[in-house]
Amino acid sequence: MDIHELLLKVKNNEIDLSEAEKTLKKLPYEDLGFAKLDHHRMLRSGFGEVVYCSGKSTEHLVKIFQSFNEKNINIMGTRASKEQYEAINALMPEAEYDEMSRIVKIMRNVPEQTGLIAVCTGGTSDIAVAEEAAQTAEFFGSRVMRVYDVGVAGIHRLLSKIEDINKANCIVAVAGMEGALPGVIAGMSHKPVIAVPTSIGYGANFNGLSSLLTMLNSCAEGIAVVNIDNGFGAGYMSTQINRLAVQ
Amino acid sequence: MDIHELLLKVKNNEIDLSEAEKTLKKLPYEDLGFAKLDHHRMLRSGFGEVVYCSGKSTEHLVKIFQSFNEKNINIMGTRASKEQYEAINALMPEAEYDEMSRIVKIMRNVPEQTGLIAVCTGGTSDIAVAEEAAQTAEFFGSRVMRVYDVGVAGIHRLLSKIEDINKANCIVAVAGMEGALPGVIAGMSHKPVIAVPTSIGYGANFNGLSSLLTMLNSCAEGIAVVNIDNGFGAGYMSTQINRLAVQ
Amino acid sequence: MDIHELLLKVKNNEIDLSEAEKTLKKLPYEDLGFAKLDHHRMLRSGFGEVVYCSGKSTEHLVKIFQSFNEKNINIMGTRASKEQYEAINALMPEAEYDEMSRIVKIMRNVPEQTGLIAVCTGGTSDIAVAEEAAQTAEFFGSRVMRVYDVGVAGIHRLLSKIEDINKANCIVAVAGMEGALPGVIAGMSHKPVIAVPTSIGYGANFNGLSSLLTMLNSCAEGIAVVNIDNGFGAGYMSTQINRLAVQ
Amino acid sequence: MDIHELLLKVKNNEIDLSEAEKTLKKLPYEDLGFAKLDHHRMLRSGFGEVVYCSGKSTEHLVKIFQSFNEKNINIMGTRASKEQYEAINALMPEAEYDEMSRIVKIMRNVPEQTGLIAVCTGGTSDIAVAEEAAQTAEFFGSRVMRVYDVGVAGIHRLLSKIEDINKANCIVAVAGMEGALPGVIAGMSHKPVIAVPTSIGYGANFNGLSSLLTMLNSCAEGIAVVNIDNGFGAGYMSTQINRLAVQ
Amino acid sequence: MDIHELLLKVKNNEIDLSEAEKTLKKLPYEDLGFAKLDHHRMLRSGFGEVVYCSGKSTEHLVKIFQSFNEKNINIMGTRASKEQYEAINALMPEAEYDEMSRIVKIMRNVPEQTGLIAVCTGGTSDIAVAEEAAQTAEFFGSRVMRVYDVGVAGIHRLLSKIEDINKANCIVAVAGMEGALPGVIAGMSHKPVIAVPTSIGYGANFNGLSSLLTMLNSCAEGIAVVNIDNGFGAGYMSTQINRLAVQ
Amino acid sequence: MDIHELLLKVKNNEIDLSEAEKTLKKLPYEDLGFAKLDHHRMLRSGFGEVVYCSGKSTEHLVKIFQSFNEKNINIMGTRASKEQYEAINALMPEAEYDEMSRIVKIMRNVPEQTGLIAVCTGGTSDIAVAEEAAQTAEFFGSRVMRVYDVGVAGIHRLLSKIEDINKANCIVAVAGMEGALPGVIAGMSHKPVIAVPTSIGYGANFNGLSSLLTMLNSCAEGIAVVNIDNGFGAGYMSTQINRLAVQ
Amino acid sequence: MDIHELLLKVKNNEIDLSEAEKTLKKLPYEDLGFAKLDHHRMLRSGFGEVVYCSGKSTEHLVKIFQSFNEKNINIMGTRASKEQYEAINALMPEAEYDEMSRIVKIMRNVPEQTGLIAVCTGGTSDIAVAEEAAQTAEFFGSRVMRVYDVGVAGIHRLLSKIEDINKANCIVAVAGMEGALPGVIAGMSHKPVIAVPTSIGYGANFNGLSSLLTMLNSCAEGIAVVNIDNGFGAGYMSTQINRLAVQ
Amino acid sequence: MDIHELLLKVKNNEIDLSEAEKTLKKLPYEDLGFAKLDHHRMLRSGFGEVVYCSGKSTEHLVKIFQSFNEKNINIMGTRASKEQYEAINALMPEAEYDEMSRIVKIMRNVPEQTGLIAVCTGGTSDIAVAEEAAQTAEFFGSRVMRVYDVGVAGIHRLLSKIEDINKANCIVAVAGMEGALPGVIAGMSHKPVIAVPTSIGYGANFNGLSSLLTMLNSCAEGIAVVNIDNGFGAGYMSTQINRLAVQ
Repeated sequence: MDIHELLLKVKNNEIDLSEAEKTLKKLPYEDLGFAKLDHHRMLRSGFGEVVYCSGKSTEHLVKIFQSFNEKNINIMGTRASKEQYEAINALMPEAEYDEMSRIVKIMRNVPEQTGLIAVCTGGTSDIAVAEEAAQTAEFFGSRVMRVYDVGVAGIHRLLSKIEDINKANCIVAVAGMEGALPGVIAGMSHKPVIAVPTSIGYGANFNGLSSLLTMLNSCAEGIAVVNIDNGFGAGYMSTQINRLAVQ
Repeated sequence: MDIHELLLKVKNNEIDLSEAEKTLKKLPYEDLGFAKLDHHRMLRSGFGEVVYCSGKSTEHLVKIFQSFNEKNINIMGTRASKEQYEAINALMPEAEYDEMSRIVKIMRNVPEQTGLIAVCTGGTSDIAVAEEAAQTAEFFGSRVMRVYDVGVAGIHRLLSKIEDINKANCIVAVAGMEGALPGVIAGMSHKPVIAVPTSIGYGANFNGLSSLLTMLNSCAEGIAVVNIDNGFGAGYMSTQINRLAVQ
Repeated sequence: MDIHELLLKVKNNEIDLSEAEKTLKKLPYEDLGFAKLDHHRMLRSGFGEVVYCSGKSTEHLVKIFQSFNEKNINIMGTRASKEQYEAINALMPEAEYDEMSRIVKIMRNVPEQTGLIAVCTGGTSDIAVAEEAAQTAEFFGSRVMRVYDVGVAGIHRLLSKIEDINKANCIVAVAGMEGALPGVIAGMSHKPVIAVPTSIGYGANFNGLSSLLTMLNSCAEGIAVVNIDNGFGAGYMSTQINRLAVQ
Repeated sequence: MDIHELLLKVKNNEIDLSEAEKTLKKLPYEDLGFAKLDHHRMLRSGFGEVVYCSGKSTEHLVKIFQSFNEKNINIMGTRASKEQYEAINALMPEAEYDEMSRIVKIMRNVPEQTGLIAVCTGGTSDIAVAEEAAQTAEFFGSRVMRVYDVGVAGIHRLLSKIEDINKANCIVAVAGMEGALPGVIAGMSHKPVIAVPTSIGYGANFNGLSSLLTMLNSCAEGIAVVNIDNGFGAGYMSTQINRLAVQ
Repeated sequence: MDIHELLLKVKNNEIDLSEAEKTLKKLPYEDLGFAKLDHHRMLRSGFGEVVYCSGKSTEHLVKIFQSFNEKNINIMGTRASKEQYEAINALMPEAEYDEMSRIVKIMRNVPEQTGLIAVCTGGTSDIAVAEEAAQTAEFFGSRVMRVYDVGVAGIHRLLSKIEDINKANCIVAVAGMEGALPGVIAGMSHKPVIAVPTSIGYGANFNGLSSLLTMLNSCAEGIAVVNIDNGFGAGYMSTQINRLAVQ
Repeated sequence: MDIHELLLKVKNNEIDLSEAEKTLKKLPYEDLGFAKLDHHRMLRSGFGEVVYCSGKSTEHLVKIFQSFNEKNINIMGTRASKEQYEAINALMPEAEYDEMSRIVKIMRNVPEQTGLIAVCTGGTSDIAVAEEAAQTAEFFGSRVMRVYDVGVAGIHRLLSKIEDINKANCIVAVAGMEGALPGVIAGMSHKPVIAVPTSIGYGANFNGLSSLLTMLNSCAEGIAVVNIDNGFGAGYMSTQINRLAVQ
Repeated sequence: MDIHELLLKVKNNEIDLSEAEKTLKKLPYEDLGFAKLDHHRMLRSGFGEVVYCSGKSTEHLVKIFQSFNEKNINIMGTRASKEQYEAINALMPEAEYDEMSRIVKIMRNVPEQTGLIAVCTGGTSDIAVAEEAAQTAEFFGSRVMRVYDVGVAGIHRLLSKIEDINKANCIVAVAGMEGALPGVIAGMSHKPVIAVPTSIGYGANFNGLSSLLTMLNSCAEGIAVVNIDNGFGAGYMSTQINRLAVQ
Repeated sequence: MDIHELLLKVKNNEIDLSEAEKTLKKLPYEDLGFAKLDHHRMLRSGFGEVVYCSGKSTEHLVKIFQSFNEKNINIMGTRASKEQYEAINALMPEAEYDEMSRIVKIMRNVPEQTGLIAVCTGGTSDIAVAEEAAQTAEFFGSRVMRVYDVGVAGIHRLLSKIEDINKANCIVAVAGMEGALPGVIAGMSHKPVIAVPTSIGYGANFNGLSSLLTMLNSCAEGIAVVNIDNGFGAGYMSTQINRLAVQ
């Protein structure tokens, strides 16, 4: 029984008033019309579902994929191992796997790509995380420009690309080691920069802590940071921003 | 001598070719036309200048304010002490001071406020940082909705406001202590959330470290984090996003 | 010789006074009647023994199980590997193993379950720790209600369950990542909340440190925290509280 | 307009059905009868209100006290400075101040004290935090037994008190330096122990971190931990537990 | 040429004075009579040599053992893997291995054991480290009393042993988890306590950090701490102290 | 009623047996003759009492001093502020104060000094902590040799003193900054070294953490560490060791 | 089209002035003659290229080696696994591998070695990192003196070598555990010391953090630090310094 | 009696051989000709002495200055407070004070400045530390070029100066906040870079930890790091390197 029915019954005297009041208070929240709690679903509407594969049992993961697959919607699994992919692929041969980004995908319909997001990396080792960001953005319908290996230790590479980068609505800057890239880009751009520290490095890098702190302390304006190695988070947020720009 | 003049001289044979080449390489970069390096200035165009007051000597700070003031542009000083304000006010009586946010301002012309940014806080102690964010956004021409004291320890307060919050183009969520607010908001919104940890707390809060980590580890999608107490950074980035939406 | 005998001898002049005094001082403490030191044993009376399996050699572990088994009492082993279970099962076929919680049990008699404890988790990955808590509570005779996957990133799921949760005498709230669940529950309940941070997460989670700090810094009232992944500790303490309520 | 009125109007055809539905969805949550969100208020019913004074401006704090005072309910302010007390006392001469615990109170009616909570400290320097816990518990109607300065460096003092301590329904154990007290007590008791680390110490104590870690890592069963110096939190939670036992 | 010879040559005019001076300055330090730099060798005299095996290649380790073995002196290898032992044993069948402490030994002559050192542990998991301490002390001629599994979570076990423990000249107290044992022992003894934190634990134990901090912050007098898991260091230092007492 | 009396009554049938048994179990522990718990008091016997002044209220501190003073025993207060000294001195003019070590003393009888302890520092800034160690050792009857400012950055200073240092029964090595002194001394001595990290330093010293870690990780044998700045602890423990050597 | 050509066209009126200006601004930076950005390449001129192998796929790594190899230049790969070496060696049999330092090299022409760099280690376990430093320096044409196993726990070994060490233009000091070596050397030398902390150690070493902090806090003058285990960085910088001395 | 005299006596039979041998071994090290231990003094020869003022009592500091002053040598005091300067200046009016760098100096003769060191800062707040470096280098006879406020958030400022910076023999790069400057400079230079993190920043800067980690993790080659705020250390080491280049 939803609210409409309930009110109808009240109107028609088919239900006692105190009974109606009590029922109303016991309904699950979403039944009360809290569609507003689900607004963010709209972002995904027509795009598909995302599954975080790491730590899930293969059996469980395959079942999730099958369930979505039967509904004919796009599915993207992040941080999938090759073993997980192979189990999925055995049953759903249309599944594709990208070893670099560890993304497994079943694309029923490829969304149109609009706007522009620039995804940049400091080094080649950061590309795995960057691809998670880029492919997430593309999955949700953003156009992505990749600008890889433009780290600050050889700043001229970055300088020669900055004009292109600035054409994007939002910039995702991915870097490990000292993590200086996002700050340098933000200093040369007026577009919002989503900074992604990676765990690439050794010694006093402390598994990405060094890059994380660098990015949080950047003197440049227009930069915000996501968790270490969180390419998905950066891809998602940059899509939110990109969509604001193109709508 | 700028590039145009130089090329003219080359054209007119008034300068030796190798000499021109050498001169060209020695010009400061900006003279080479690297306006692209200054794109972010455009954000501020027509809005004014921002000065980080903390740690600056009063004498030095007053001089900066006077220099901008003579050019008749808006000036906003962040993290200003009352003493700094008084020194500025003695010479520039039009300067205003907000003790809560520690912002000192001289507004020559109030910019039109467009779009919408929601600035939320978990508790009343976070309002100082939130005001730095809100007033920064307003300084650069964003319209701001303040939603204060809606922390997750009394979630019903937040729930009753969430529909309004979701009308904004970008949400700034400010919280100290456990710092859970931005994650909970992001879970109920499809707009990008800029999370600002504050140093409010004691004990195992470790001066904001706890809130910072909470925000970085949020399971919700669409959230990125700035430095502890960095209201200015959040206000600036949310304006960049807001502008993308309204332009 | 216990105290009673000793005093009897004194009374009957069968022992020299100074000799009695000396003997008295040398008796092991427990012989002096320090049953009070063992009060907490009473909690377990009629329920059985718990063994922490991790790090114990298989040989040693099997011997412990056999020793208790021969006394016909219930035994619960926590953090048992499959190998450990198999070695136990080979000799004691009545042993059962739950892969999720890594608990191996031999239940001679199932205790009556009284009162009510709610065990909640933020995500599905936290269920392993939650089950350790839930099954510990059940082992010691508590009735347990499981409320899993109600994390704050989708707060409506939690809201629709909160009335049920509040019926429990004590709430165990298990969460990894940002660890905000216990604080949000405590804000909506007047029952004591035992918070369990888990090591689920990556990057700036630092193996559960982030969740731990979040829980310690919660603004909500009525929350206390156990060690990261310490499901057993939470199950035990919630049983102590539950028993106070039902006795 | 509350729900009852609204339903009445529906029943009496005084309101359009779709209008009623819309109104219903827009009502603040609490108006929807979410008294369940406020269950924890019940704990305080008849006891009064608590205010965290630290960081609040004197002006603001005095206003809060006056507002509660006019309603004739008990008020307790924690972490109040002497200056804050004096400002309150100037207007409300019935306000009392305890310098040790930094609590300022206006007690309109002293609640009956039921059950029993034991509040123990390792050293004399921990008494400030312990008193915050004890007086909080008393404010909410718990009977409190104080057992101070029984730290583990002189274990015989604790041993001679343990039988008394075990008579309580819940034990609050407060300790700085190495913080071993709660674990030792839990090893000798079957009652739940709320452990409170304090920031008392120097050097490798790191402002209470050492005590905090000790308590979280205790091998003893039946112990959970609150934030460093959080006497109020321990007092509140022990009252929740005590009330379960006496009701 | 040693100093004596040199001076003799000077005396006998067999060497030029400036030449003698130059030679003198170039002699390796030890040749200058810095036997004092080697005083600590005396501790080992007649006892043998100790080798830290961890991280050494098998080939290299075997060679070291052979070299000492040929000189007919006792050898003790700490932190030896089973593989390392087997390689040694293949060539030197008299080598013995203790899996618990990971010590491999070749004892040519068993030293007389004098004085008394008590080696205590909190739990059974700490015995590996305790045995490294105990066997090191024995290797260098100390008599050792083992008092294992007397952790503070069941304090009566410790209390019943404390009189025996106090008979030792020096106490080695080994504990993981919360690490409270050494402080409690020091509070009941007037003998110096060498505290050894172990890495036994999980979660907020942070690989022994918790135990280490507990021990450093102990309120008890007469306690000093060695590195996490450093049984050898504790065994060595306690022997130094024991020898001062018996000489 | 002590044990002797009680047993006498039993013997004389003046008390019921079950009554005697019950009384026995209720006696405070110390009354049961647990003098063994107080063995460490023996160290102090004839020497006096030590008071940790920091954080104590002046009023409270003066009272403690007066109470001991009336019993005509030596008193040493550590970490006393000048204000605390002055308050003590006003009533007990025989009190002496050493600003460097912040020790306030009332010496009724100067104990004979036996054995030898060497107290060494790396720099001159470490002398405050070193003096706390040295004067503590002297207070308890140890002879002390001071060897200050022999840090490893100018190793020749240390080398020229090492022969003297090695004459001591125990060495206290105090160092801030990088904290390398104790390890270097231990490498040149066969006497036990008590290492005391100090909080002297800046930047990556992190208030003594750097020195602390250095000392815990020393490769040299025969070294154990006390808390940062804990001169008293080192002085006490070195006295325990020194006494073993001279008795 | 480079600058020279462009200017020539301007001179010859073959290009429109505004067109020339526009072209100029769009040229990649390096085309603008920013050879100065590449000065550091000069260091390598005539020496060859260095590749960081760790984390690179074998396939990718082999391709890099082949590409350089075809140009007949020297190649050095650092942190290469044996598997990586074998894959390279299969195609380029002239490749050599050093298991200790994990360096794989193809040397077309051995550079003349000039100047002098001393590479010292505290222990034998630090040699792997030291060899990375030494062989890097040699690769770039520096003469290297190796002084291994001269740690401060046996200072006489270092003292007997210090005169030789001081003959170098630059000293690389490599140490794990407590990491005191570089500071002690700097105290006895007037040559710049590059300090390399290693991750050798256990417990409170925290993977090299302890050594790192020690070196940063050294009281000695003339010492600077590179990342934990960064032998390459030390070898490179010491070569820069050595070259300044010999040029 | 020095070595020469001693040997002369031996030669002349004025001293017994065994007596000579014994005397020889007891001489302070430096008397044995360990001038080599003092080589680093040579750096200072003709330049003067440096005193670290922070933490020294005014009385003590003045005495040190007077003692050097009477010998007519240059003196430089680092980290001097204004009060310390004033006390020095009262007795030695020739003393000069620089508030920015907190250096107090008495220059008897200004040394010739040779070679070139570039001292760069990221922001204006880093200038205090940079000046300590620059003035230290000048004190020891290096020529210094100051390049301030060229942080990476506005990279064009740095780019326009890089050619000049590269003319130096050694570069000191000083930066707080994210600390990216040294890495960016090293990427554009082939000269050794001494990186100095400063404690300028807030929040997740953790008093310079962020900058320190950034610099240690730099991907650029030719960079080594000193302690946070250690301008003196950088000035000294850069002088050592500069001198190697100019000698």
